Amino acid sequence: MKRVGRQTLQFDRAPGILGRGAVGGRKEAAGPLGADFHQTFDDTTLQEDSWEKAEAQLQKEALAVAMKGAGCQPQDIHLIFAGDLLNQCISSTFGLLDYHIPFLGQYGACSTMAQTLLMASIMVDCGAAEKAAAVTSSHFCSAERQFRTPLEYGAQRTPTAQWTATAAGCAIVGREGPVRVLHGLAGKAVDLGVKDPANMGAAMAPAAADSIYQYLTDTGTQPQDYDGIFTGDLGAVGSTLLLDTLRDNGVDLSGVHKDCGLMLYDRERQDVHAGGSGCGCSASVLCGHLLGRLERGELKNILFCATGALMSTTSQQQGQGIPGVCHVVHLAAQPAGIQ
Amino acid sequence: MKRVGRQTLQFDRAPGILGRGAVGGRKEAAGPLGADFHQTFDDTTLQEDSWEKAEAQLQKEALAVAMKGAGCQPQDIHLIFAGDLLNQCISSTFGLLDYHIPFLGQYGACSTMAQTLLMASIMVDCGAAEKAAAVTSSHFCSAERQFRTPLEYGAQRTPTAQWTATAAGCAIVGREGPVRVLHGLAGKAVDLGVKDPANMGAAMAPAAADSIYQYLTDTGTQPQDYDGIFTGDLGAVGSTLLLDTLRDNGVDLSGVHKDCGLMLYDRERQDVHAGGSGCGCSASVLCGHLLGRLERGELKNILFCATGALMSTTSQQQGQGIPGVCHVVHLAAQPAGIQ
Repeated sequence: MKRVGRQTLQFDRAPGILGRGAVGGRKEAAGPLGADFHQTFDDTTLQEDSWEKAEAQLQKEALAVAMKGAGCQPQDIHLIFAGDLLNQCISSTFGLLDYHIPFLGQYGACSTMAQTLLMASIMVDCGAAEKAAAVTSSHFCSAERQFRTPLEYGAQRTPTAQWTATAAGCAIVGREGPVRVLHGLAGKAVDLGVKDPANMGAAMAPAAADSIYQYLTDTGTQPQDYDGIFTGDLGAVGSTLLLDTLRDNGVDLSGVHKDCGLMLYDRERQDVHAGGSGCGCSASVLCGHLLGRLERGELKNILFCATGALMSTTSQQQGQGIPGVCHVVHLAAQPAGIQ
Repeated sequence: MKRVGRQTLQFDRAPGILGRGAVGGRKEAAGPLGADFHQTFDDTTLQEDSWEKAEAQLQKEALAVAMKGAGCQPQDIHLIFAGDLLNQCISSTFGLLDYHIPFLGQYGACSTMAQTLLMASIMVDCGAAEKAAAVTSSHFCSAERQFRTPLEYGAQRTPTAQWTATAAGCAIVGREGPVRVLHGLAGKAVDLGVKDPANMGAAMAPAAADSIYQYLTDTGTQPQDYDGIFTGDLGAVGSTLLLDTLRDNGVDLSGVHKDCGLMLYDRERQDVHAGGSGCGCSASVLCGHLLGRLERGELKNILFCATGALMSTTSQQQGQGIPGVCHVVHLAAQPAGIQ
């Protein structure tokens, strides 16, 4: 492993994605990327007796699908990195408990897919693991009642609000695979003072701008060197802010940038307001749609830049801002693209 | 880095502890290890207007002390691994925000000090970071109101209950230093069905037994090869269970085992029932007391085995068990002890 510039890591062995799993709910199945999911559940309780248990089940299923694709068993996976939005990351703990894999809980809010994929890639690259898994999830119903109001209240959502995806994604990283991880960057938490929990996109955009700018600087690359720079999940409001901020700093993402939160749902038809969000949004877009396109050669070379809003209802009630964070992972179809 | 046995990592470069910081509150200052803290606060609000903000301040102070000891600045630290018990790890986010260090949030409940130290050591060993920091905290008042009842209720505590430490610990890992990290093990989550949140020691003991047994097997070592095997924080109940469980499996820890939760306070005099707990308990015992003894050569060779209870009030209320996890870090004074 080599450090490049101030914050970027370059992977010597270019770890590969051995298996992947994307699972989702009814709304996700009905969206534009519905066909890219490995499995979707019409009944979003997954026949569990609580939303939290249903969410845990999503992680369990995503890992099962990914292991099947990788042709491996739980005991082949040396380390698992997982996290979620629920207090004390309980969907990860309870969803993955039965697999008995050494477990390192991660907290990065909606940046978790990039964070766990970065960690798993580092572990494989340095030999700490032969295979490592990255998993995360979110569930609309568990998130609404924990962070906002119970569904039964029927609260009205603001136009800037995003829709938490009912979905999970899992990637199993090893030494081979059709898609390789070439670089990664761990982001800084950035707080520019946005305090509106119904406008997470605005809270996370500065962190996305910071990490993407730093990554391009460190690697000496331009946005146009990539087939796509995918953020997750800034939504409509945050995406505009990201492009404006970077343009002010001489970087033009237009034509290259897409946001997972704007890809997962049809905003006209599905009433998601500013777009999708939640750990499971970018996770399922990556593990279902994007990795599939990379495998098929439709994309050669992308940056996956998942963003998270690091806050709790307590910090919110105490008047704190909403710091954002964005981690970047550079993925390429074989043969490897730019280094 | 080399894998040894099923779960253990051996560090080729033996990363070192460049700097360390242990900060605590009034009760911790009055305990048997009071003199080993770098800084203690008689006013446990730290002049903040909420307990959560006070806890964040503890992390900020612990990192400041550790950086001073290491003679480094925030920009010298390439990665920071931090987590805590509060929902969405807000003491880490807000405590460390101003340092602008690339941030990877960790969730391991009270195992966080071992988890973050393990991650930081891996990063330095493989070259992902020149210097990496491991930080965690807990605060009695923020934990009581989040996990149990607000202090104002004056609820009675059961004899098996442990006392959440008001403390934080930070270790900065680099390529040198008087104390070296030789091995590490990431534990599995283990749930044997204990459901009593006032008896965390019993919930975590099986995970501690699992990880310690695996570590000794992987490395082919005996408990007596170490000057001490320090768990954190099983308390009185969990420690007995750990020793009994391992004895049943042919491993005798007696005379070698100590528990950070039983070291931090004087149980006779300080009314902590079954002992101390919380991320800050084992963190401050490690970063204050244990690393100090290693530096002075009073200890040569120890295992630090922090344990966490992976649960939330939601999982508790929904009748789930309390899975435990235990991560192991092997520390040695220079010259390095057994390999």
